[in-house]
Amino acid sequence: MCGTDSPASINKGSLTSANGNGTRSPTCSSDRVLNLEQGDPSVFQSYWSKMEDKCTMVISGSQLMSYISDFTTLCWFMEPEFEEAVRRLHRVVGNAVVDDRYIVVGTGSTQLYQAALYALTSPGGPEPVSVVSAAPYYSAYPEETDYLRSRLYKWAGDAYEFDKNGTGPYIEVVNSPNNPDGTLREAVVKNRGDEGKLIHDLAYYWPQYTPIIRPADHDIMTFTFSKSTGHAGSRIGWAIVKDKEVARKMSKFIEMSTLGVSKDSQQRAAKIMGVICDGYKNFKSDELFFEHTRRVMAERWERLRQVVDRNQVFSLPKYPKQYCLFSGELIEPYPGFAWLEAKEEEEEIDSQKVLRGCIKVQGRTGSRFGVAQKYVRVSLLSNEEVFNQFLERLSTIKSISNGH
Amino acid sequence: MCGTDSPASINKGSLTSANGNGTRSPTCSSDRVLNLEQGDPSVFQSYWSKMEDKCTMVISGSQLMSYISDFTTLCWFMEPEFEEAVRRLHRVVGNAVVDDRYIVVGTGSTQLYQAALYALTSPGGPEPVSVVSAAPYYSAYPEETDYLRSRLYKWAGDAYEFDKNGTGPYIEVVNSPNNPDGTLREAVVKNRGDEGKLIHDLAYYWPQYTPIIRPADHDIMTFTFSKSTGHAGSRIGWAIVKDKEVARKMSKFIEMSTLGVSKDSQQRAAKIMGVICDGYKNFKSDELFFEHTRRVMAERWERLRQVVDRNQVFSLPKYPKQYCLFSGELIEPYPGFAWLEAKEEEEEIDSQKVLRGCIKVQGRTGSRFGVAQKYVRVSLLSNEEVFNQFLERLSTIKSISNGH
Repeated sequence: MCGTDSPASINKGSLTSANGNGTRSPTCSSDRVLNLEQGDPSVFQSYWSKMEDKCTMVISGSQLMSYISDFTTLCWFMEPEFEEAVRRLHRVVGNAVVDDRYIVVGTGSTQLYQAALYALTSPGGPEPVSVVSAAPYYSAYPEETDYLRSRLYKWAGDAYEFDKNGTGPYIEVVNSPNNPDGTLREAVVKNRGDEGKLIHDLAYYWPQYTPIIRPADHDIMTFTFSKSTGHAGSRIGWAIVKDKEVARKMSKFIEMSTLGVSKDSQQRAAKIMGVICDGYKNFKSDELFFEHTRRVMAERWERLRQVVDRNQVFSLPKYPKQYCLFSGELIEPYPGFAWLEAKEEEEEIDSQKVLRGCIKVQGRTGSRFGVAQKYVRVSLLSNEEVFNQFLERLSTIKSISNGH
Repeated sequence: MCGTDSPASINKGSLTSANGNGTRSPTCSSDRVLNLEQGDPSVFQSYWSKMEDKCTMVISGSQLMSYISDFTTLCWFMEPEFEEAVRRLHRVVGNAVVDDRYIVVGTGSTQLYQAALYALTSPGGPEPVSVVSAAPYYSAYPEETDYLRSRLYKWAGDAYEFDKNGTGPYIEVVNSPNNPDGTLREAVVKNRGDEGKLIHDLAYYWPQYTPIIRPADHDIMTFTFSKSTGHAGSRIGWAIVKDKEVARKMSKFIEMSTLGVSKDSQQRAAKIMGVICDGYKNFKSDELFFEHTRRVMAERWERLRQVVDRNQVFSLPKYPKQYCLFSGELIEPYPGFAWLEAKEEEEEIDSQKVLRGCIKVQGRTGSRFGVAQKYVRVSLLSNEEVFNQFLERLSTIKSISNGH
């Protein structure tokens, strides 16, 4: 299953490892499983540790007690400071158009995705609207779409398949840069007049992960505090929406789903976004947020590619350099996940099992993303110690098989 | 429609007011509408203002960043400090059994209600499970049940009706004390073996609103930070659950719905609950939380009953005194809402319209709660100024009609 002493080789379908004894090599395992299945963004924590004073949030016992932020606005549970901070951050980064657009706050982009499905469908249709996304698609879309067995919408799988064979009204989710594979994407279902609607999930469209090639300007765009700054525990996301009625329906969904969104977390997000923007205004910070995080991601990718190239067991996608409007340079994407493909030609190879069995690394199998299990997604957003451990263990894999 | 000078009288179906000119009396209206439709719990803010120092929450920029609180537990996104605080608070108050029970945190009890529906149903049944609650029922249940047109469950209205004529599997929501009418309740659908399941919504089962007659001990009980301490803006609720699999499914629902619950708000809730419990441990506080809030609610109800008795236009429910285990006294309920019934016999009288038209008070009509529109629910949880204004305006109504 794995071996440190043998030359790089792949034993198709074999139960034996390259070192010939069929058991785990002691040099490629350790007792602790590294959980790199989720994209928990711990990588950014060290930056925020250095910024503690500026970012500390203080909330007294009597603040933020009301359900209501501003009843005269469409999204009445959104803190005005949060909305302002979101608009300001996008203006500083240049990754999305915010002028003349509505902002809707959500409990993470997970909730906003569902709010968008609700807003784009109506009761009374003969069939639920088909929801599609190009494979490999974000693994949570199918279950987030189907868990309540709604009559409004249903998961219909790969958008490429739907483009060929699908009929009727549909919603295509365009995830760009795409989770799991990091590619910049556009809609794939060919225009069918009024039948198709789009949701753009832009969770990773930030300068630490990708060149900012243009200010995104789509009907519904969702973003999340988790991936932009790394504050996943706050469960804050937002949507930028062109159409007023769609924004109103999304807000209504959030009202019925959770009666608003934590104000404590909205205020904290506003504060932290403000610190980032102040940094770019004053240029006083030692290292600005996106420069720091991009550098860390670039270093991780460089080290990862070295290990992957050296042991020749997996391959990684190649990304073209593109001109980044934010940095003013031609730069490469550095996605938050490694999308590893087993080099073995056998489609049935189970790369998740290989990682788990050989080096006790928990990734997420390609089959959860609608593709073959020879693919596995591994988070690159862990803290430094876990990332180093991952590379160390990955470097010990010299061959894989599918048997255990 | 309203008049200050005339004696108390009710003009059935008449468009004229008691003072005979058919127009709004200037003494019973003011330009500002008092929004008492929602139960925004501002009444408790003054207490927390006095406790600022003890309750202030401080969160540095690098804290609470992970999605995960404890991956080894069933509800992996629940902060351990929050769970401990919830158990401690219930032990101090004695309003619910928590030993050998699972706790599940949610984004308010709104989300937990939906999590419970999900946990109590399964895909593949021939028909959606009927969800019922005795009228007058909480106005949000119908839309929270039906907005996604689930095939798992559907709103089926008044539990009394279902008890008479309904068939098949059902879930009964028992809201006690009941919103809108403040009564202590038990399930009304007669036991039908395995066909029926119960959700107990105990949002108001706290000593400021009601005598604590026993530690509640039901299969699924939901509570909310909004109504217990008044911190609605934090969107924190919790469920106490007997069955492990039900608790697991509820957690799974919250994972799919919002990928967890704001940690900032969980920690803040833990801190505030801790301050309440410390008060009861040390008895050092000038006035303890539930004693203070009960006194305020008692005073409001006394003043409200005086006004309502005096002008003879509406009636309020009478509540029996019961022995409260928490205070050790025989006490009356002081619900968070006034459930006003027009004394006029005419069923069609629209009390919401009367309040809005005559005194610019926005309540919520009985028809939203599954009963006649001669009922209207008005929040008693506003701040002092708004409550005083409400009473002042209410005292000016001397007669009502249904015509405008």
